[in-house]
Amino acid sequence: MRSSNFSKNERIHKVQAALKEQRAELCLITNPVDLYYLTGLNLSSGKLLVHPRLALLFVDGRYIQVAEEKSAVPAVLDEADALLRFCERTEAKKIIFDPKATSFLQYQQFKMQIEGFQKKGRRRLSLIPDQELFQRMRLIKDAGELKALQRSAALLWKGYQHILRILKPGITEKDVAREFEIYCLQEGAEKLAFDPIIAFGPNSAMPHYRAGKAKWKKNQIVLIDIGVVLNQYHSDMTRTILPANCNPFLQKMYDTVLQAQRAALKMCRPGVKIGQLDLAARKVMKCMKLEPFFLHSLGHGIGLETHEFPRIRAVGADSDVQLEEGMVITVEPGLYVAGKGGVRYEDTIAITKNGYVNFSPRSG
Amino acid sequence: MRSSNFSKNERIHKVQAALKEQRAELCLITNPVDLYYLTGLNLSSGKLLVHPRLALLFVDGRYIQVAEEKSAVPAVLDEADALLRFCERTEAKKIIFDPKATSFLQYQQFKMQIEGFQKKGRRRLSLIPDQELFQRMRLIKDAGELKALQRSAALLWKGYQHILRILKPGITEKDVAREFEIYCLQEGAEKLAFDPIIAFGPNSAMPHYRAGKAKWKKNQIVLIDIGVVLNQYHSDMTRTILPANCNPFLQKMYDTVLQAQRAALKMCRPGVKIGQLDLAARKVMKCMKLEPFFLHSLGHGIGLETHEFPRIRAVGADSDVQLEEGMVITVEPGLYVAGKGGVRYEDTIAITKNGYVNFSPRSG
Repeated sequence: MRSSNFSKNERIHKVQAALKEQRAELCLITNPVDLYYLTGLNLSSGKLLVHPRLALLFVDGRYIQVAEEKSAVPAVLDEADALLRFCERTEAKKIIFDPKATSFLQYQQFKMQIEGFQKKGRRRLSLIPDQELFQRMRLIKDAGELKALQRSAALLWKGYQHILRILKPGITEKDVAREFEIYCLQEGAEKLAFDPIIAFGPNSAMPHYRAGKAKWKKNQIVLIDIGVVLNQYHSDMTRTILPANCNPFLQKMYDTVLQAQRAALKMCRPGVKIGQLDLAARKVMKCMKLEPFFLHSLGHGIGLETHEFPRIRAVGADSDVQLEEGMVITVEPGLYVAGKGGVRYEDTIAITKNGYVNFSPRSG
Repeated sequence: MRSSNFSKNERIHKVQAALKEQRAELCLITNPVDLYYLTGLNLSSGKLLVHPRLALLFVDGRYIQVAEEKSAVPAVLDEADALLRFCERTEAKKIIFDPKATSFLQYQQFKMQIEGFQKKGRRRLSLIPDQELFQRMRLIKDAGELKALQRSAALLWKGYQHILRILKPGITEKDVAREFEIYCLQEGAEKLAFDPIIAFGPNSAMPHYRAGKAKWKKNQIVLIDIGVVLNQYHSDMTRTILPANCNPFLQKMYDTVLQAQRAALKMCRPGVKIGQLDLAARKVMKCMKLEPFFLHSLGHGIGLETHEFPRIRAVGADSDVQLEEGMVITVEPGLYVAGKGGVRYEDTIAITKNGYVNFSPRSG
């Protein structure tokens, strides 16, 4: 299924412009998610070669018919040395590939294929791993994608409301997760974006807990981290529900997380480095002497996958990435104290010209 | 969740025996499915190092608590050079890794870490890609796994019966897929093993079709390829339903596929090379002059993943693999004629001491 306003050429042109900018000659795209993004086809395997002026999709016999009919890029059968002959025609010496989406085995096999081809007296071709081009490819969402992400978030919100309705003393975490999934499928979700995290009481203190056999007691905290996929676009949201007569420490954690999120959201506009968002959230936590309990990054890009580039964090390779209009990210500070409980609050937002728009409804 | 009779040490011992046999020194396991198989833990990331006499699991802060409490293998924090210091203690010079489950980026990062460590005057360590050990690790299923696979197949059969109940003229392929998923979740499935293939009429001729907007007409063929996950074990089954007054060519295709499957199943016992199964099925098809319409391999291993080693095919690297007691595979011949339709029939079977047992109920 294509996204609503799939533009045949614009996306390929953006890749070609990036190739020119990097003075690169060819890039090989094999990640099925990238292939969908650029061709509009759901392929379990395929190879797309992009050159600053040309693009050609290579598929096997299973996909050639659908590719010839529907691909946004010309397609041919991936047989014998067709791909390498295409490389030769472009006179390229280097092929950029995505080291994150390519297994070592795929790399070895492709390298052997190239070496076999070269034995026949052809020009030298080398394979160059390069993450940058691939990370940025799906970073800026177009209008159709923004709409799809917003719709996915809206469906997720309905699913969250359903959880609030079914949450009764005695229900297990697993039952909540299952009922949520069934409800979302009935309401039109393609699938869940990830296994729901439904954590009662002390289980909420484990940031990567999923859902277990624990039964809910009325005075327990509930952490809910959920996402759905609609029209191939993912949503992701976390809410933490405090019990009515909550102990003061959990309440302090909750208030701090909300305040930290507000501080980070306040920074969201084009030009701001993403590391600054993390620092803003951490500053609030530090004030409350709770920062050591923030155990993960502040968020991540989201789109055709739940976790996309960049990772929102003050340390590490992505911290200098600047926010740009059209980026969609999550902002999800959390605090976790073993034995006591955990609080996380996560929204998905899109960066606009002057600030941001929040796709995750407020309240709850 | 652990499989019912998870044996703490047996699985690690098998890996250690394989290492000894290959005169290998250390192997690095990072594939989350293998990590679950060997430790009993669901980890999104982690590193397990196995040496002929030792095994140690390295996890990050998120998992250290659960790993210390529940891992079948001793666990420590994956910090600084802990992993490389462990390698040094074992006096190993080579680390085997899985080239299929390791991205080129992970390989690069680990190689850089090793090189940094060596600069401090340590012993040379090299990374050796080697598929064999990893392919064979989960090949032979133990009694608990066989039970889990059989249960998964039984739940799938219930789901298939549900499809037969809801299949009415006018229903779309997508609706059938969705209703099947909801039913299976309600009946206790963790999730589907893969997106269902529900293909009406000419859509059945595309072996990798999924489910679309087509509405069923009573005189149309229906191809159903479905699977569920129960207790982490996958099932996989295909049935093709012929219309009552079927055209003779489709009937011939159907009879040929069934006969080809019977011929392949007849070969199933320990000691037989899997290429022979494919040849037996193809021989039947050749007799009927239909073999050119068999477009994929005859089947695949199945267990914690839907597609496991080996690929059942007369050509290619796996063709010489011999059947052994405890292997679980699918046998799924198919014929596809564009414009006319497709037929596939798939069972999941376990190899026993003298033959095989079929996990997919007959009829339908």
